[in-house]
Amino acid sequence: RKKYRIAVIPGDGIGKETTPEGLRVLDAAARRFGFDLELTHYDWSCETYAQTGKMMPDDGLEQLRQSDSVFLGAVGWPGVPDHVSLWGLLIPIRRGFDQYVNLRPCKLLPGATTPLANRGPKDIDFYVVRENTEGEYSSVGGRMFPGTDREFVSQQSILTRIGCDRVMKYAFELAMTRPRKKVTSATKSNGITFTMPYWDERFAEMAKNYPGVTTDQFHIDILCAHFVQHPDWFDVVVGSNLFGDILSDLGPAVAGSIGIAASANINPEKAFPSMFEPVHGSAPDIAGKWIANPIGQIWSGAMMLEHLGEKAAADAIVQTIERMLGEGGPRTRDMGGQAGTVDVGKALAEAV
Amino acid sequence: RKKYRIAVIPGDGIGKETTPEGLRVLDAAARRFGFDLELTHYDWSCETYAQTGKMMPDDGLEQLRQSDSVFLGAVGWPGVPDHVSLWGLLIPIRRGFDQYVNLRPCKLLPGATTPLANRGPKDIDFYVVRENTEGEYSSVGGRMFPGTDREFVSQQSILTRIGCDRVMKYAFELAMTRPRKKVTSATKSNGITFTMPYWDERFAEMAKNYPGVTTDQFHIDILCAHFVQHPDWFDVVVGSNLFGDILSDLGPAVAGSIGIAASANINPEKAFPSMFEPVHGSAPDIAGKWIANPIGQIWSGAMMLEHLGEKAAADAIVQTIERMLGEGGPRTRDMGGQAGTVDVGKALAEAV
Ligand SMILES: CC(C)[C@H](C(=O)O)[C@@H](O)C(=O)O
Ligand SMILES: CC(C)[C@H](C(=O)O)[C@@H](O)C(=O)O
Repeated sequence: RKKYRIAVIPGDGIGKETTPEGLRVLDAAARRFGFDLELTHYDWSCETYAQTGKMMPDDGLEQLRQSDSVFLGAVGWPGVPDHVSLWGLLIPIRRGFDQYVNLRPCKLLPGATTPLANRGPKDIDFYVVRENTEGEYSSVGGRMFPGTDREFVSQQSILTRIGCDRVMKYAFELAMTRPRKKVTSATKSNGITFTMPYWDERFAEMAKNYPGVTTDQFHIDILCAHFVQHPDWFDVVVGSNLFGDILSDLGPAVAGSIGIAASANINPEKAFPSMFEPVHGSAPDIAGKWIANPIGQIWSGAMMLEHLGEKAAADAIVQTIERMLGEGGPRTRDMGGQAGTVDVGKALAEAV
Repeated sequence: RKKYRIAVIPGDGIGKETTPEGLRVLDAAARRFGFDLELTHYDWSCETYAQTGKMMPDDGLEQLRQSDSVFLGAVGWPGVPDHVSLWGLLIPIRRGFDQYVNLRPCKLLPGATTPLANRGPKDIDFYVVRENTEGEYSSVGGRMFPGTDREFVSQQSILTRIGCDRVMKYAFELAMTRPRKKVTSATKSNGITFTMPYWDERFAEMAKNYPGVTTDQFHIDILCAHFVQHPDWFDVVVGSNLFGDILSDLGPAVAGSIGIAASANINPEKAFPSMFEPVHGSAPDIAGKWIANPIGQIWSGAMMLEHLGEKAAADAIVQTIERMLGEGGPRTRDMGGQAGTVDVGKALAEAV
């Protein structure tokens, strides 16, 4: 009987409400599919910060390293600036564990309402593969001539050969597992003329290794437009840290699933634990009311199981979500229902 | 009787077909509203490049400088790389003439089909104000360790105080002329931690000068999602060169008007000529068939007249476009009709 060690970080706000439901469904899947989950809880959050002055202890990464995966709720709270909350917890884990792939499914689920006209589940079903460690989110930059009219700030965007190649390889490998076998590259080489032409170069180079995969590429401006106009064109979309960030919010938005979307921060070599988190944030406006939709968290749990090698269990969770939404099972308010966070979690856990 | 000197650059592909229709409507407006347009034609294009090895002559900018405005069709042709066509004509004009505002209306016109469900003309009517000279499109960057595993490229994004302040000022002034008086800033200060926090700082500083203007700001990822989910939230949206570029394609896309959208590259101080061009490109696939939709070009002409001070004439053109689309006047194929480029231009010119 296999056993997986999971580090659980509920974090802030609704993260504390959705994480238990994620665990409830994971537990049901473990029982049905015959594996064990050994959970370790960490209370790291903006609350811990208020008490200790740190989002996580100095040896936080070492503690997490003992686990097979990290299961995260949400990070951030009003009054704590992003450079403390995000850069004190979320980003150090992504980078420290070299989780260089940020993977987000963009899928129109039955029963979800897309803002697009005349689009059904068959029209929107793709993945965004985002580079998660370098690019536009760099630590190289600064400010000159502060307080004067000559003042300026500068920040480098950096793409390495290793960084481009490995995330593109992941995208092509993913496409190989899918019926359409297509990879679209997000670029802006007509405007950003040092980094993005290099991205194109590496993409063309990688494509040579995958003659069975169809490829195309669009500049990010028109690509965003195509997401809205032709979401059915896409299968796997690969982008830099910033472009991937944009596309992996826009994709779920066109699919009407931004409140329930899942994401995975993956180190494909499993040299470090990977981390799984819903796309939504800590939602201070509804936190404490137990009305938050737990589906993003539960879906992220399914991605975690898939990464751990429990594909049958992962598929069962995703199919149960789709079936329950399609059949009009309990829904939270954001989806037009009356159910609470726990109701949805329990219903899904039972159905799994 | 006022006279304006217009430099006309049809450029490539359908630019050659839409520009004459733009001029036809401008001419009609000039006659009706009592001013003169003195046109000078320039054949600068990828064709010129094929013959002369240059997109425009060395003294191109000096020649254009004699004019009050530049009226551009489209630039680019298969076989001529972007760094030649765009960086040999479009970008040098934007930068050489310090056209630091790129302005694009995002408006759901009557009769246009938006990809969004349940949205009417009242829901989508805003402007994107894009910084057009600095930011992510910088000329500072390079490549190191070429051909090795250590290879990397780097490009700086640069925001100056002057560059931020002047484009933000333009956005606030524009908002002051509109009923809702609201400016939204596009940022990403939670991820891009040197340049974007500075953008936020300058935005907050500028807002202090406009107590009558409502402001908000969103990170670019969720802002793109909001464009799709809540286009009615926006009035004037200001962004850096890259973010503005993305939003000013996404905005017309959600409004169903990407094929007919207009844009202005403005030097507000009129120290240099401004430039007006449709958002669409040279469209090699339909060039030569005279089926291209000239509305983007004609609408750009209206923006030019507004900039020149002929607001009544500009409004008359935009209203005529709206009326004709609403009443089912001639339409090109992209809008479900059978009309040719010239038919639409003639109908609009007559109606003006
Ligand atoms: C062609 C390209 C360089 C240009 C830009 O990004 O500025 C275009 O997308 C535009 O928006 O005018
Ligand atoms: C919170 C922020 C730094 C983060 C990002 O941009 O990476 C978020 O938008 C995400 O996509 O996970």
